[in-house]
Amino acid sequence: MSADNKNDNMVVTPWEVKGDIDYGTLVQRFGTQPLTEELKERIAKHAGFMHMQLRRNVYFSHRDLDWWLNEYDAGRPVGLYTGRGPSGGVHLGHLLPWFFCAYLQKAYNAKLYFQMTDDEKFLHREDLTLDETIAYSYDNALDVIACGVQPELTHIFSDTDHIGHIYKLGLQVSKRITMSTVKAVFGFTDSDNIGLTWYPALQAMTCFLQSYREGRNVACLIPAAIDQDPYWRMTRDIAEKMGYTKPTQIHNKFLPPLTQGGKMSASQPESAIFTTDVPEKAAKKVMAAFTGGRETIKLQKELGGRPEVCNIYAYYYYLFEEDDAKLIEVEQQCKCGALVCGDCKARLAKMVKAFLVDFQTKRDKAKDNLADYLIK
Amino acid sequence: MSADNKNDNMVVTPWEVKGDIDYGTLVQRFGTQPLTEELKERIAKHAGFMHMQLRRNVYFSHRDLDWWLNEYDAGRPVGLYTGRGPSGGVHLGHLLPWFFCAYLQKAYNAKLYFQMTDDEKFLHREDLTLDETIAYSYDNALDVIACGVQPELTHIFSDTDHIGHIYKLGLQVSKRITMSTVKAVFGFTDSDNIGLTWYPALQAMTCFLQSYREGRNVACLIPAAIDQDPYWRMTRDIAEKMGYTKPTQIHNKFLPPLTQGGKMSASQPESAIFTTDVPEKAAKKVMAAFTGGRETIKLQKELGGRPEVCNIYAYYYYLFEEDDAKLIEVEQQCKCGALVCGDCKARLAKMVKAFLVDFQTKRDKAKDNLADYLIK
Repeated sequence: MSADNKNDNMVVTPWEVKGDIDYGTLVQRFGTQPLTEELKERIAKHAGFMHMQLRRNVYFSHRDLDWWLNEYDAGRPVGLYTGRGPSGGVHLGHLLPWFFCAYLQKAYNAKLYFQMTDDEKFLHREDLTLDETIAYSYDNALDVIACGVQPELTHIFSDTDHIGHIYKLGLQVSKRITMSTVKAVFGFTDSDNIGLTWYPALQAMTCFLQSYREGRNVACLIPAAIDQDPYWRMTRDIAEKMGYTKPTQIHNKFLPPLTQGGKMSASQPESAIFTTDVPEKAAKKVMAAFTGGRETIKLQKELGGRPEVCNIYAYYYYLFEEDDAKLIEVEQQCKCGALVCGDCKARLAKMVKAFLVDFQTKRDKAKDNLADYLIK
Repeated sequence: MSADNKNDNMVVTPWEVKGDIDYGTLVQRFGTQPLTEELKERIAKHAGFMHMQLRRNVYFSHRDLDWWLNEYDAGRPVGLYTGRGPSGGVHLGHLLPWFFCAYLQKAYNAKLYFQMTDDEKFLHREDLTLDETIAYSYDNALDVIACGVQPELTHIFSDTDHIGHIYKLGLQVSKRITMSTVKAVFGFTDSDNIGLTWYPALQAMTCFLQSYREGRNVACLIPAAIDQDPYWRMTRDIAEKMGYTKPTQIHNKFLPPLTQGGKMSASQPESAIFTTDVPEKAAKKVMAAFTGGRETIKLQKELGGRPEVCNIYAYYYYLFEEDDAKLIEVEQQCKCGALVCGDCKARLAKMVKAFLVDFQTKRDKAKDNLADYLIK
């Protein structure tokens, strides 16, 4: 059985992520480079510390990150780009790259262009109106701001409301991309609408937006989940023809859902913690979550739990237990049967509640300052 | 020989107009309705006079013009839409529907949405930059204004510079048009760029723009040459799904070139009179033009000229001899051999010079008031 057959149920595209994700296979399948210890150290050097997401290998893959760091080391400007498809509320999985962007922004004094793809969500989803997706853009922007990005270095924009800032560059990009290309890259067919087939020009455009606005080349790094990779492969092919350098990427893993299997989704609210969940309600979701525990407490004490398949453990690992020593303690106590799931969940639920109280305070405050973070 | 075979060399598409144009065949081929005397009278009734272009059958075809007039007669609002692909200077042929729009605007107190399709020209033409096509938008807008449109009823817009006014409606339209449709209607292939295949959404959008901005349905009439008809056929198919009424059209004939065969084109400056031509230079073009005259003056006096194939006569007919009695006199004097081409050209050259002096004064004045005519 080949590595690929093993992951036959794995689907990772810009519109769908499902199955058992094997990150080693993804690196092969997408043709990216694994993130090395050396690169992690290089990122950390300028930040003064290594971000938890780096220590825990939440970032596992990249394209040309070494070059982006070289540019910075050579005294040339570097920038960041990430985005969000605003089709509903934001859950904790969405926050992973946004926290990481705030970390990189501070360490590298880098501008962040944050794209709200409300046009694409409207064009792709039969059930959403344009007014709804635009409203989500502004709602979701509060979450971006609450992640700690800096107003003077951040340019959040709605494709639709801020089209005046981006249409010209989008046209320049679109002139260099044929229908054949987007059919091959995204699987579009002639039955797709002409808005949807145009849209990749706008997602590609943002790779060059800072360079375009500043009239100089700025090395662009995109922290994002690997499912968006097809956009950047296409963009890299046209970058030099546009007179810009290729965008570079760093890819994060997907935070697992709280439920067994499936994925985090607004249509399955119990699968994820949303940033606007009432903290008590979020705590209840944690208490109801799927774990790597045994069928009975007796068995758990005998055999120990299985943190490697436990979603509660994943939440500690990805987001909530910043102290590496304490994380190892949780893992060991679980494995030896000393820590039972109820107690472990209750501890996480408390942390989630505290996180949400703090995050929601920041999110509310962002309502007053939103304009400071929007593209101008 | 069928009517169609007779016109086998006739090509009339949004990108190409060539061959011997037979307007009867076009009405059949495009499936439009011939413009009747009754409709011409109905248009003239509210204007107080019948425009020369109506008297001379410069407008020969329509779709649902009767319904547009009914709407007006029923006290409901009516609007106008036309446009320009800004790829160079404006020649007299372009002015025909713009003069007619100014006439209709006044008669029907109708808002005119005038679209400068600088995005499409950039996407279609390898040799034009976006900065160039946008610059032509503003340059060509001066010609529109010089045709006598009213600032309080006119909204000229550049697709690119004013995209913020139109993108949302363009998205709504694009969601209802598939790649299959634009391939069938415009002959696009997978080798075309994704900007070009998106663009029809914007040309269609303008049919609904006034309704969209005013939050009520406004009957839209498009005076334009028939080569643009594929856009409106496509738009009519989606109008009701968008919650609007179908756009109506009135189609003008093409002004012939000054040269024999070929077409008016910026790449053949002798083929056309451009609005910015130095009047003396324009006069020379007239003097060098192809006519329906005989090979010698002797033959001309014996056999008479042929106004029916004469481009000089066409210029009198379409634009310069407003007095019907005088036009008939020119025709008769030519046919009987009394009027020789040199004298006839000299008379037209004088009229063209006088026209250009006046038009260029209005055009220069428009530079100071341009902003009053732009979409806001």
